[in-house]
Amino acid sequence: MEQRAKEREQPLTFVLVHGSWADAGFWNGVAAMLRRMGHRVYTPEYPGHGSDPNKNVTHAMITKAVADFIIANNLRDIVLVGHSFGGSVVQKTAELVPDRIKRLVFMDGFVLGDGQSVVDQFPLPVQQMFEQLRQTSKDDSLVLPFPVFRELFVNLADIKLAQQLYNEAKPEPAKPAFEKLDLKKFYSLTIPRSYLYLTEDNLLPQGEGYGWHPHMSSRLGVFRLIRSHGDHMTYFRTQPGLLAQKLYEASRD
Amino acid sequence: MEQRAKEREQPLTFVLVHGSWADAGFWNGVAAMLRRMGHRVYTPEYPGHGSDPNKNVTHAMITKAVADFIIANNLRDIVLVGHSFGGSVVQKTAELVPDRIKRLVFMDGFVLGDGQSVVDQFPLPVQQMFEQLRQTSKDDSLVLPFPVFRELFVNLADIKLAQQLYNEAKPEPAKPAFEKLDLKKFYSLTIPRSYLYLTEDNLLPQGEGYGWHPHMSSRLGVFRLIRSHGDHMTYFRTQPGLLAQKLYEASRD
Amino acid sequence: MEQRAKEREQPLTFVLVHGSWADAGFWNGVAAMLRRMGHRVYTPEYPGHGSDPNKNVTHAMITKAVADFIIANNLRDIVLVGHSFGGSVVQKTAELVPDRIKRLVFMDGFVLGDGQSVVDQFPLPVQQMFEQLRQTSKDDSLVLPFPVFRELFVNLADIKLAQQLYNEAKPEPAKPAFEKLDLKKFYSLTIPRSYLYLTEDNLLPQGEGYGWHPHMSSRLGVFRLIRSHGDHMTYFRTQPGLLAQKLYEASRD
Repeated sequence: MEQRAKEREQPLTFVLVHGSWADAGFWNGVAAMLRRMGHRVYTPEYPGHGSDPNKNVTHAMITKAVADFIIANNLRDIVLVGHSFGGSVVQKTAELVPDRIKRLVFMDGFVLGDGQSVVDQFPLPVQQMFEQLRQTSKDDSLVLPFPVFRELFVNLADIKLAQQLYNEAKPEPAKPAFEKLDLKKFYSLTIPRSYLYLTEDNLLPQGEGYGWHPHMSSRLGVFRLIRSHGDHMTYFRTQPGLLAQKLYEASRD
Repeated sequence: MEQRAKEREQPLTFVLVHGSWADAGFWNGVAAMLRRMGHRVYTPEYPGHGSDPNKNVTHAMITKAVADFIIANNLRDIVLVGHSFGGSVVQKTAELVPDRIKRLVFMDGFVLGDGQSVVDQFPLPVQQMFEQLRQTSKDDSLVLPFPVFRELFVNLADIKLAQQLYNEAKPEPAKPAFEKLDLKKFYSLTIPRSYLYLTEDNLLPQGEGYGWHPHMSSRLGVFRLIRSHGDHMTYFRTQPGLLAQKLYEASRD
Repeated sequence: MEQRAKEREQPLTFVLVHGSWADAGFWNGVAAMLRRMGHRVYTPEYPGHGSDPNKNVTHAMITKAVADFIIANNLRDIVLVGHSFGGSVVQKTAELVPDRIKRLVFMDGFVLGDGQSVVDQFPLPVQQMFEQLRQTSKDDSLVLPFPVFRELFVNLADIKLAQQLYNEAKPEPAKPAFEKLDLKKFYSLTIPRSYLYLTEDNLLPQGEGYGWHPHMSSRLGVFRLIRSHGDHMTYFRTQPGLLAQKLYEASRD
C-alpha cells in the first residue's frame, strides 16, 4: 500500500546519509518523494563508496566528509538522517557540527554505545562471518554471500529484485565497521532525535539483547518513535512514498 | 485508516478510566463511537483531575471514587477499562467491586506488580525527572516539559495537535504515581482480562525489561491480546473509531 | 483486509504440517488459496490426530509418518511448513529427509533447542496446567479449558467462531509435547529457513525470554523473517488469502 505523500506543512532540509553496500543513489526514490513534498534534500556520498575505488578508509574520514559537505553547502537547521551504518556516521557527524542540526533521525541506523563498533552489535556467529570475509578479501573489503543478503537485507523482495540489488552493491570497506568509536561527546548532546523502525528488518535479531529497536534506540534517551513496514533495503526501491512519509513524521517539529 | 465500527452483536457496559494529565473528556471521541456501536459507556472522573483544583489526593481516594461511581450507578457486568495510570486504578478498583466486573481491559495501562508504584515502571532517568518536577512544584504536581510530552505521548501527532493536547493537560497530582500499592488481592482475582497494546506507544521503552507489552501485560497471566496502531494519546483524538473497534474486540466475550 | 493472492511467478510444492488440536483439515482454506496461486499442496495428517482414535503416539511416530508421506508421494524440492507443534515435527522430519527439502518454513511453529520439549517453551504456570490436564485425562490426552483456548489461540475471533473452532478440536495426545528431542542433526543442517510470525499470536508470551519470534526463531541462525497480522488459529479460517500470500513470501527463492 503506497501511501500518498500528502503533508506539506513544514518544509525541511534533509541530509540523508547512506549505509554500507550502498551509495548516494540508494536514496534516489525517497529523495524524489521528499522533494515532491516540498523539502530540500541532500545525499552526500562518503569515501570508499560509489565510484571511489579506494577501500582504505576510516570512520573518521567518512564522518569528516559528511561534515565538510554540510559546511561547504552552508546547510543549517538540517534533519540529519542515517540509515544502517549511516547511523554511526550521524552520531560522529553530530559531534562535529552540532549547531547546524535541528534533529537526528536514525532509520534502522546503528546507535553505538560509547566505545563500541558497528560489528559489536551483531551476534557472535555474524561477527565471525564478517571477520572471515575480511580475511579472505584482497583489499580489506566485505562482499556478502548472496543467501545472507537475500534473507537478512531484502527479505521482502522477490528473487529478481533481490538479485538486482545484490548486483548493484559494491564491496564494502571493512575497517570502519570494526572501529571502536569514542562517543562521549555524542552522549552529551541534546539535539532532538527520532528512531524510524522498519518492522520486517531482521538484519539484527529483533530482541534478546540485540536489535534496532528497542535495543539500540533506547540509547537515545527520550526520542520519537515512528514505525513502518519494511525490511532493511527493499522498500527504498519499492515503497519510496511510504518511507518518505514516515521519514517526514519522524523529522517534523 | 479509520476503520468503520461495524459490529453490533454484543451490547456491553463500559466504564472507561482515564489516566494522568487527562480527565473524563479524554474519552469523548472513543465513547461516542462506542455508543454509536450500541454500547453503554460511563467515564468517571476522579479526584485531583478535571475541574478539581485540589491536588492533594491519594491513589486510594481515586480508586474509591471510581468504585463509588460504579456502585452509585448500580452498574453490573461491566467492562472496566483503564488507560495509562488508569490501569493501576482498574487494578485497585477490581479489588473493591470484583463481583460487578465482567472483564478488565488494560489499554496501554499500567499493570503493577504487588508492592510497586507507577513511577517504578519507568527507567531511572525518567524517574529522576519526575522526582525533580515534583520538587520544583508548589502543590506537589507534575507538569511535563513540552518536548517530553511531544516525543513520548503524542509522537504520531503533528506539531499543532501536539501543542493543543499539551495545552489542554492540567498539572497532575504527583503522590498517587509514587505510592507503592498492595496488590495481593488483585493477583488472587480470576476476572477475565485483556490487554490492548498500541504499537507506537513509546512512553515506556518497548522492551529490555520495560514496557506495556509484554513486560507488564505478562503479569496478567492468561489474557487476551489485541494490538492496534497508535501512540499513547494521539489516536484518541484522531482515530476514535479505530480505537473503539479494537476496544470492542478486547472486551467482547 | 483480505489481500489478493496475486503472484504466480514461482510454482512451489508445499507440504503443510498441522499442529496440536488440529488435523489436515486445518489447512483447507490456506491450501485452497495456494492451489489457486498455482502451487502443489500436500497436507499429511499424522498419528493421534484426525480420525485416529489412538492417542498413544510418540513424537518419533509422528515424524516418521510425515517423512513416509513425503517419500511415498515421491516429493522433492519441497517447502516444508510447520505450524505450532508442527514446527517441532518439521525439525525432526528435516533430519530424516533433508535432501528432499528446498526450504523449511516455521509459521508460529516451535523451534526447539537441542534436548528440549514443546512444553519446555511455556511459562511455568502453563506447564503446570498441561501437567494437570494430563493427569486428569483417561488416555493421556489434553483438552484445553475453553477460556484458555479463547484467549490464547483465537483472540481475534468473535465468540461464535471461537466456540466453533473449540468444538472442532479433538483431545490432543500429551506425550509428544512432553518428549525432550535430540536435535543435534537438525542444528547441523544448512537447508534455507524462514519464520512467518503472526503478530497477535500470544499463545506464548511475546518476549521476556519466551515467544515465537525472536526467541525461538533466533535458534534458526540466518533466516528470512515475514510478518503478518493474525493470532494462533483464527486467520486460517477467516483470512486464508492473506496467510497464503505471506506463506508464499516466506517460501519463494
